[in-house]
Amino acid sequence: MEFEVTILGNSSANPSYGRHLSAQFIHHGNDYFLVDCGEGTQMQLNAFELKKSRINQIFISHLHGDHFFGLIGLINTFSLLKRTQILQIFCHEALQIILETQLKHTGAILSFPIEYHFLPNEHQTIFETKHLTVEAFPLSHRIACCGFIFKEKIGERKIIKSQVDKYNVPIAQLKDLQQGKDFAKPNGEIIANELLTSAPLPPKSYAYVSDTCYLASIIPIIQQANCLYHEATFKNEDAQRATDTFHCTASQAATIAKLANVKKLLLGHFSAKYKTEQLDELLIQAKEIFAESYLSAEGLTFNIE
Amino acid sequence: MEFEVTILGNSSANPSYGRHLSAQFIHHGNDYFLVDCGEGTQMQLNAFELKKSRINQIFISHLHGDHFFGLIGLINTFSLLKRTQILQIFCHEALQIILETQLKHTGAILSFPIEYHFLPNEHQTIFETKHLTVEAFPLSHRIACCGFIFKEKIGERKIIKSQVDKYNVPIAQLKDLQQGKDFAKPNGEIIANELLTSAPLPPKSYAYVSDTCYLASIIPIIQQANCLYHEATFKNEDAQRATDTFHCTASQAATIAKLANVKKLLLGHFSAKYKTEQLDELLIQAKEIFAESYLSAEGLTFNIE
Repeated sequence: MEFEVTILGNSSANPSYGRHLSAQFIHHGNDYFLVDCGEGTQMQLNAFELKKSRINQIFISHLHGDHFFGLIGLINTFSLLKRTQILQIFCHEALQIILETQLKHTGAILSFPIEYHFLPNEHQTIFETKHLTVEAFPLSHRIACCGFIFKEKIGERKIIKSQVDKYNVPIAQLKDLQQGKDFAKPNGEIIANELLTSAPLPPKSYAYVSDTCYLASIIPIIQQANCLYHEATFKNEDAQRATDTFHCTASQAATIAKLANVKKLLLGHFSAKYKTEQLDELLIQAKEIFAESYLSAEGLTFNIE
Repeated sequence: MEFEVTILGNSSANPSYGRHLSAQFIHHGNDYFLVDCGEGTQMQLNAFELKKSRINQIFISHLHGDHFFGLIGLINTFSLLKRTQILQIFCHEALQIILETQLKHTGAILSFPIEYHFLPNEHQTIFETKHLTVEAFPLSHRIACCGFIFKEKIGERKIIKSQVDKYNVPIAQLKDLQQGKDFAKPNGEIIANELLTSAPLPPKSYAYVSDTCYLASIIPIIQQANCLYHEATFKNEDAQRATDTFHCTASQAATIAKLANVKKLLLGHFSAKYKTEQLDELLIQAKEIFAESYLSAEGLTFNIE
C-alpha cells in the first residue's frame, strides 16, 4: 500500500529564505492527511499539485502560529470549492475557539461540517482507518504539544495462488485464508494456513516529532519506525538557544533516531536564521550520530519503506 | 517624493494559478503602508525584498478572509524580529477580537503595541502624515467594506536659487518663502514670492477600491486620481455572477475609471477561476472603455505619477 509523506514547509517560527512554515501531506492508500498547517499551506498544496480536497483528517501538533495559521484559509477554500465531506481536526481545545471566532466574524457559513477531536495528555490512539492507526504522544515544548505516529495495521496474509489451486480451495474461503485460518478439505483433512499463504508485509510506520526539547520518553513509542521526522531547529553550536526555547539540535534529533533504532531520519523545522546552504551543517552533525539522516526539503516526497 | 505601489496579491477568494490573495505595499517618501493582508502576504513581502519592518500602518478593507488572514502571521513575525514601533491597524472592529483571540490562545506576548483605529461608515480622513492624507470611504459589498485614497498634501513652493541669490535672501527666510510668504528687504522693499519661488508639484493620489459592486457614489471621491486600483473580479460574460456576489466586471471598473477621469486604472482581485492567460480578456474589455487600463500583476511596482 502506498505510504508517503510530502514536506510542505520546514521553517521554524517565520518563513525565511524561501522556506515555508510547518506542514506535511501524508498519503496512505486511499487516505490523505495533513499534519500541521502553517500559513501558506494551501499555496504549497497547489504548488506541488497535491490532492488537497481529499484530506479528511488534519492533525495540529500545537498552537504556535507557525503550525496552524494556514488552517483558516484552507478551511475557507474548502468551502469555496463546495466541499461537503466532514473535516476532522485533531488539535488542542483552543483551536476550536480560534477558528469559530474567525468564522463568526467573517460571516462564513461553511459548506461542510468540522468535527473537533481534542488531543490527549498521554500516549493514545486518536484515529484509525481499516489499515492504519494514528497515535498521539506528548512532547515537551513551551506549550502543550503532541507528536504523532502513523502505524500500519498488520495486513492480511498473502494467498499463494499455485497452492490454493493445488488444494482446490473454493474462492469463498480465500478471505478466511487471508485472516490466517486453516483450510478443511471436504474429506476433513486440514491443510495448514502456512502451506497456502505467505506472511503479510511487515507494517510500516511514520513518526512526526515537532516541536520539543530532547525527550527520551518518546523513544519506546517511535521504536523502529520506518521514518522519523524530528525537529532539528538548531545547529549544535546553538545548543543553549535550543535548550532555552525547548527545541532540539541536529545531534539531539539524531540521538533520538539512533536510540529508537528507526530506519530513516528526516530533519526539519529549521531556524529561520539559517540560510539554505547552512542546513548542510545540520545534516553533517546529524549524520555523525545517525547515518540515515536526510534534510526534509520542501516539495520532496519520501516513501515510507 | 517617491510614491509607488507594489502588488503583492491579486487573486479573489482563494489562491489560484500561482496568484496570491489581496495585499499591496505602498511607499510614499519615508512612509510604508500595507493595504489588505491576505494569507501569504509576509512571504510575498520577502519574495519581492520589500521593507516590511518599516510598515507602521496597515489598512484592512473588510473582514473577508482573503483580505486579512495573513495579518496574524505578519504580526507574529514582527514580534519575532523584536519590533518595538507601534503598529497602527485601520480596520473594522471585529478584527481586534479575532487577532486578540489568536494572540491569547497562542500565548503570544508581542514585542510592540498595536493601536486599532476603526473604519468609519462615511467618507472621512482616517490618517495623515506631514505629506499625505488617507481617506476611507464606504463600498458596497456583502459585508462592511471600505475603499481608501492616499492623497499627497499640497507641497511647499520651490526656491529659485538664482533669484534668492539675486535678492540676497538670508537662509533663515527660505522656510517662509517655501510657505508662500513674500520677502521684505532690509530697506522695506517687498519682493513678491512668485519672483523667488515656483509652484509646488501638483499633489498625486492613489485610490484602492476592492471589493464592491458598481458604485457611482465613489466617483467624486476618487475624481482625477493619478492611479486607481479597482476590483475587476469577473469578465463581462460573468456579469450576473458579479451582481450576485457584489463584485464588478472589467467594464464596470473601466466605467468608474472613465467617469472619475483618473489617469491610470489597475485591474485586480481576479476570480480564482480564471487562468492567467484569461486575464488578458479582462484587460481588453476594460481598454474598450478606458484606454489607460493595466493588469496588476504580482510583483509589479507602479509609480504614482
